[in-house]
Amino acid sequence: MKKATKKEIKFSLVYRDMWQSSGKFQPRADQLARIAPVIVEMGCFHRVETNGGAFEQVCLLAGENPNKAVRAFTKPFNEAGIQTHMLDRGLNALRMYPVPADVRRLMYKVKKAQGTDITRIFDGLNDERNIIPSIKYALEAGMIPQATLCITYSPIHTVEYYSALADRLIAAGAPEICLKDMAGIGRPAFLGKLVKEIKTKHPEVIIEYHGHSGPGFSVASMLEVCENGADIIDVAMEPLSWGKVHPDVITIQQMLRDAGFKVADINMDAYMRARSMTQEFIDEWLGYFINPTNKHTTSLLVGCGLPGGMMGSMMADLKGVHAGINMFLRQNGKPELSVDDLLVKLFNEVEYVWPRLGYPPLVTPFSQYVKNVSLMNVYNLIRGEGRWQAIDQNIWGMILGKSGRLPGKLDQEIIDLAKSKGLEFTDEDPQLNYPDALDEYRKEMKENGWDFGEDDEELFELAMHDRQYRDFRSGVAKERFEADLANAKAQALAKQGYNEEDVKKAMREGCQPICATANGTLRWEVDPEGSMAPNTGSRFITNQPICTIETTVGYMEDMKSNFTGKLIEVSVPQGGAVRKGQEIAWIKPDEKEEFYQEAAPKLKRVEQEADPRKRVPAPPKHY
Amino acid sequence: MKKATKKEIKFSLVYRDMWQSSGKFQPRADQLARIAPVIVEMGCFHRVETNGGAFEQVCLLAGENPNKAVRAFTKPFNEAGIQTHMLDRGLNALRMYPVPADVRRLMYKVKKAQGTDITRIFDGLNDERNIIPSIKYALEAGMIPQATLCITYSPIHTVEYYSALADRLIAAGAPEICLKDMAGIGRPAFLGKLVKEIKTKHPEVIIEYHGHSGPGFSVASMLEVCENGADIIDVAMEPLSWGKVHPDVITIQQMLRDAGFKVADINMDAYMRARSMTQEFIDEWLGYFINPTNKHTTSLLVGCGLPGGMMGSMMADLKGVHAGINMFLRQNGKPELSVDDLLVKLFNEVEYVWPRLGYPPLVTPFSQYVKNVSLMNVYNLIRGEGRWQAIDQNIWGMILGKSGRLPGKLDQEIIDLAKSKGLEFTDEDPQLNYPDALDEYRKEMKENGWDFGEDDEELFELAMHDRQYRDFRSGVAKERFEADLANAKAQALAKQGYNEEDVKKAMREGCQPICATANGTLRWEVDPEGSMAPNTGSRFITNQPICTIETTVGYMEDMKSNFTGKLIEVSVPQGGAVRKGQEIAWIKPDEKEEFYQEAAPKLKRVEQEADPRKRVPAPPKHY
Repeated sequence: MKKATKKEIKFSLVYRDMWQSSGKFQPRADQLARIAPVIVEMGCFHRVETNGGAFEQVCLLAGENPNKAVRAFTKPFNEAGIQTHMLDRGLNALRMYPVPADVRRLMYKVKKAQGTDITRIFDGLNDERNIIPSIKYALEAGMIPQATLCITYSPIHTVEYYSALADRLIAAGAPEICLKDMAGIGRPAFLGKLVKEIKTKHPEVIIEYHGHSGPGFSVASMLEVCENGADIIDVAMEPLSWGKVHPDVITIQQMLRDAGFKVADINMDAYMRARSMTQEFIDEWLGYFINPTNKHTTSLLVGCGLPGGMMGSMMADLKGVHAGINMFLRQNGKPELSVDDLLVKLFNEVEYVWPRLGYPPLVTPFSQYVKNVSLMNVYNLIRGEGRWQAIDQNIWGMILGKSGRLPGKLDQEIIDLAKSKGLEFTDEDPQLNYPDALDEYRKEMKENGWDFGEDDEELFELAMHDRQYRDFRSGVAKERFEADLANAKAQALAKQGYNEEDVKKAMREGCQPICATANGTLRWEVDPEGSMAPNTGSRFITNQPICTIETTVGYMEDMKSNFTGKLIEVSVPQGGAVRKGQEIAWIKPDEKEEFYQEAAPKLKRVEQEADPRKRVPAPPKHY
Repeated sequence: MKKATKKEIKFSLVYRDMWQSSGKFQPRADQLARIAPVIVEMGCFHRVETNGGAFEQVCLLAGENPNKAVRAFTKPFNEAGIQTHMLDRGLNALRMYPVPADVRRLMYKVKKAQGTDITRIFDGLNDERNIIPSIKYALEAGMIPQATLCITYSPIHTVEYYSALADRLIAAGAPEICLKDMAGIGRPAFLGKLVKEIKTKHPEVIIEYHGHSGPGFSVASMLEVCENGADIIDVAMEPLSWGKVHPDVITIQQMLRDAGFKVADINMDAYMRARSMTQEFIDEWLGYFINPTNKHTTSLLVGCGLPGGMMGSMMADLKGVHAGINMFLRQNGKPELSVDDLLVKLFNEVEYVWPRLGYPPLVTPFSQYVKNVSLMNVYNLIRGEGRWQAIDQNIWGMILGKSGRLPGKLDQEIIDLAKSKGLEFTDEDPQLNYPDALDEYRKEMKENGWDFGEDDEELFELAMHDRQYRDFRSGVAKERFEADLANAKAQALAKQGYNEEDVKKAMREGCQPICATANGTLRWEVDPEGSMAPNTGSRFITNQPICTIETTVGYMEDMKSNFTGKLIEVSVPQGGAVRKGQEIAWIKPDEKEEFYQEAAPKLKRVEQEADPRKRVPAPPKHY
C-alpha cells in the first residue's frame, strides 16, 4: 500500500509572523540570539523568517535598535546555511503607507547586508505596479525576491486571476512565488488548483505556501498545495502555533510523511527546548501583550474573510462603541446588544461592504480599512443613520486608486458618493506621489550628529520609520515602553485575582528589604499631630535616618537606610511590634545609586518627589 | 476549471460529544428541548448525536432523569426527519466496565423507544467479540448498528488491519462503519486509503468519519475521506467547535463545496441563534465545568496519541504529583520541574509504555490506563525507582486479556512481571465473566417501589449505572451537584479578580434589598458599649424592627424587615447618611418564608444562628 516517495517538501519557521499574529511585541535581540541556535538544532527548517513586516518598527517601539536585532537573529542561521527571509509590503515597504523609491531601494541593500537572504514582496491590492520595482531593487541588492499573491476568497479572485498575476510577476524577474493566505480562507482545493496551474507553466519557480490557521482550512490547504507541486510550507511551533497563527511543524511534517513526501526529521529534544525558551520569553514580558483568544480557531472568520490576527483590535473597537450604542438603545427603548451581537453584525457588514469597495484583499492596511468602514456603518445603522458616513482620508485614497488598482468594481453608490464630494479617481502609478527623500534624512542625521551606521542602516531606519526612530534615539520610546510594560504587569496581576501575596512579591522585584535592628515597637515618626508610616513612593537616602525602634529594654534605636531609592512597601505599620531581623519595609534602589551615595553627605534632608502626594517621612524625633 | 459536482456529503452535528470533549456536564433536558428546533432550522444536518457515551450517566450526576432528557432531545429531530444517533461502548455499553448481556440487550430496546435511531458501537481494543453481540441486539431492537473502527496510529494499525476488521463487522450485520478518530491522530492520507479500501469492497456500506481537532489533522482528514468515498462527516458548531473538540460545520461545508461535493446550505441566522443559545447555557452553568485550554489545538498530542479530551484530567493529575516530586528533588539537591516539564516527560513515557502494553487504542478506558501507568512510571523514575510498579486491577485486566484481545504483542518485561505475580492470561470471551443481572435489579426496583418507567427505561438506568441511579433517586446526586456548582461559581468569581461590584452582584442574587424609608442618619443600634451594624448572616424576621433612621427633620423613624431571612450585605454603615429609597442592606429570604411569617408573632426576639459569630442586632433603642 505504501506509495513511492514523492518530492521533498521543505519548511520555513515563520518566527517573526508567529509573534506578530500573537501579540504586540517580539523577543529582544538578546533573546533572538539565544533561541536561533536551538532552532538550527531542530534540524527541520530550510528557512526561517527573521524580520520584516512589523519587526523593525516594533523594535523601535520597544526602544530597541532593529538593526542590531536583525543582525543578531540572522547570524546563526547564515552560519548554519539556513535561508532567512523577511516580509515587505512593496510600495509600503515596512510601514503602512507609501515609501519613496530611494528608501525602498536602500532597504534591500541594508537587509541583504544584515543577513536576510529572501524578501517576500506583497501588495495589499495585488497591483503589480507596487511589487515589480521591489523585485528589481531586491535583485540589484543580491536578495531573492519572492513575489506574492495575497489570497482572498471572492468571485473575482479566481485561479485564472491569480495565475495571470503570477505570470506577470515571474516575467518581471521573480524566481519564487508565495501564496500568502493571510486570513487562512483560501479553500484547499482552490489553492491546489492554483499551485498546479503556476507550477505547470513555470516548473522552475519555487512556490511557498503561507497560511494562517484561524478559520481552520490551513492543514488541508497545506496537503493540497503539496500534492499539486508546492515546494516550501510556512509553519509555526509551540507555544505560538495554532489558533489564529499557523499550523505546527509537527502535524504538517507527520501528515506529509504519511502522504509519501520526503520531509526532514524534527529533533524533538531541540523542539522542546526552543518551546520552553519561547515560553520563558512570554512569561518574562511578551505574554503581557498577547491576547489569549489568539489561541482560538473560529469559523466565523470564514464568512467575513478578515485575518484572525485582527480579532484582538476588532474586539477592542467593539468594546469602544459598545457602551455608546447601548446608551442609545436604552434611550430609545430598544433591547441592548452584547459585544458578541455586535461582532456578528460587524461580520455581516464586512460581507456587505467588501464587494462594494471592489474586493480589496483583506490584508494590512486594507483589512483595517474595510473593518473600519464596516464598524462605522454598524454604528450608524443601529442609530438609524445611513452607511458610508465615516470614510477617512486613507480609505478614500484606496477607493480613488491612490494605493493602486482595486481588483473589483466599486459599487455605483460609492462612485456617486465620491463624485458628490468632488473627489477624483486616478490610475496613476502610486509611487509617483512620493518623491525621493533620502537627502532630507541624510541632512537630519548630520544635523543631529547621528552615525549613519553600518551599511547606512541607521539612515534607512530613520527614513522608513522617522517618527518612531526619533523617539527611539531620544529615549522616549524606551520610557513609554517600560511604562506600558509596568502597566500591563499590574493589570495582569489584578486580573489574576486578589492574591495579596503575589502582588507584594511582584512589587518587591528588584527591591531591597529594610530589616529591624532590634526587638521593640516601630516608630516611623513622632509627630504631635499624629504619627504615621511614610507613604509608599517616598524617597530614602543611604545613611539617612529612616525610623526608630522603641526597644523592649527601653532605649531608642535609630535606623538608617542602606539604600537610596523609593519606598515600595511598608511591611510594619506605625507602632507595630517588630522582632530583630524582621522586614519592616522594601526599597527600590535607584539605578544610579552611586550618585546619591556621593551626594548624600551634602543633602541636609531627604529629597522630595515632585508629586505632592508623595509624602516625605520627617526625620524621627526622639522622646 | 470547475470540477463536475461529486456526490453529496452529509453532516452530523455531534452535540453530545461537543459537550463531553469540552467539560463535565451537558445541557439540561429543558435546554436541549429549546435548542433542538434551532438546530433543525439550520437545515444542514442529516443526523444529530443526541445521547450515549457519557450522556446518560452525566444526567444522573446532575440529578436529572436521563430518560426524560433523551426523549426531550430526540423528539424534535424525530419529527423533522433528522436521524439521531448515540455512542455505545460495546461490552461496556454506556459505562466504563463490562455490562451483562441482558442489560446490553435491554439498552437498545430502551434507546430505540426513546427516539434514538442509530447506535455507534465501539470497543476500545477493536475486539469484534465485544462489538458483534451489540450489532445483533441493535438490529433486534430496530436500531441501525454503526460498527466502529477506533483509529489509532501504530505500526500494527495498518489499512489492512482496519479493513479486515471492517469486513468482519460488516459480515456480522453492520450496514454502516464509523471511523472513530477519537484522538484526531489518524493521518489524512492513511484515512483516505482506508476509506477507499472499505468502500471498494463494500460500496453499499455507509461510512461516517468522526475526528477530533486536537492535534490539527482533522480538516485535512475530512477532505481525504470524502475524496475517497466517505458519506457522512461529524462536525461541531460554535461556541464549542475547534480546539480539542471537532471542526466547525462552516469550514467543512465550505471546503467540501469548493472541492466539488454537494453539501447542504447552512441557515446562518439559525446557526447564530443556536450559537447564542449554547453560549447562554455556558454562561448560566455549564461554563463553570469547562477547561478553557480545551479551546487550544496542540501538536504535542501527535507523538503520544492521547485524546485531547484527556488533557484536563491529565493536567490535574500532574498538578497532583507536582509538589511531591519537587519536594523529593529539593531534598536530593536536584533542580525542580515545572508542570510543563512533567507533561513532556509524561508524553515521552506514553510513547515508551504504549507499544509495550500491546498498542491498545487510546480511547476510554484504555487511554486512561496507559496514561495512569505512564504517570506512575514518571513519578517512580524521577524518584530513582523502576517502572511498572503501579498497575492496578483494571489495568492488569486489560493486560491479561479480560477486556478482550490486545491488538499488539505485550513486551516480555510485562509478561514476566505478570508471571512473577502469579497472574494468568486468558483468551476467553470477556462477556462470560458477567452473568445476566436484570432479575436482581427488577427485585431492587420492586422493593423500593420504583416505577419501571416507560419501556422499562428506569429499570435499564438502574442496571446500567446502579450507584449513580440510587444517588439520583435519593436526591443525593442533585444535592452534591448543586454544592459543586455553587463552589465552582465562587471559585470562578475569585479567579476573575478582586472586582467588588461583581462579587456583590453575585452575592445579591436571590436577595431582597431593604431601602431607607426616610432621609437621615442610619442607626443600626444604640448601645452604650458602642453601636454597630449587624454582622452579615444575622437573621431578620418579617415585621420585626431592623434599624432606625434619625431623620434630617429630627424624629426617629423605625424600620421593619419585609422579609424573614439572612442578612447578606450591609450597604450603609452605622451612622451613615441615607437618602429615602436608598438600599441599606440585602436580605436573602428563606425559601419557606410563610412559616416564619406565621410563626413571627409568637417569637419574642429575632432568631439566633447556631454560629456564635453571627451576631443578632439588638432591637433599636430610641433616644
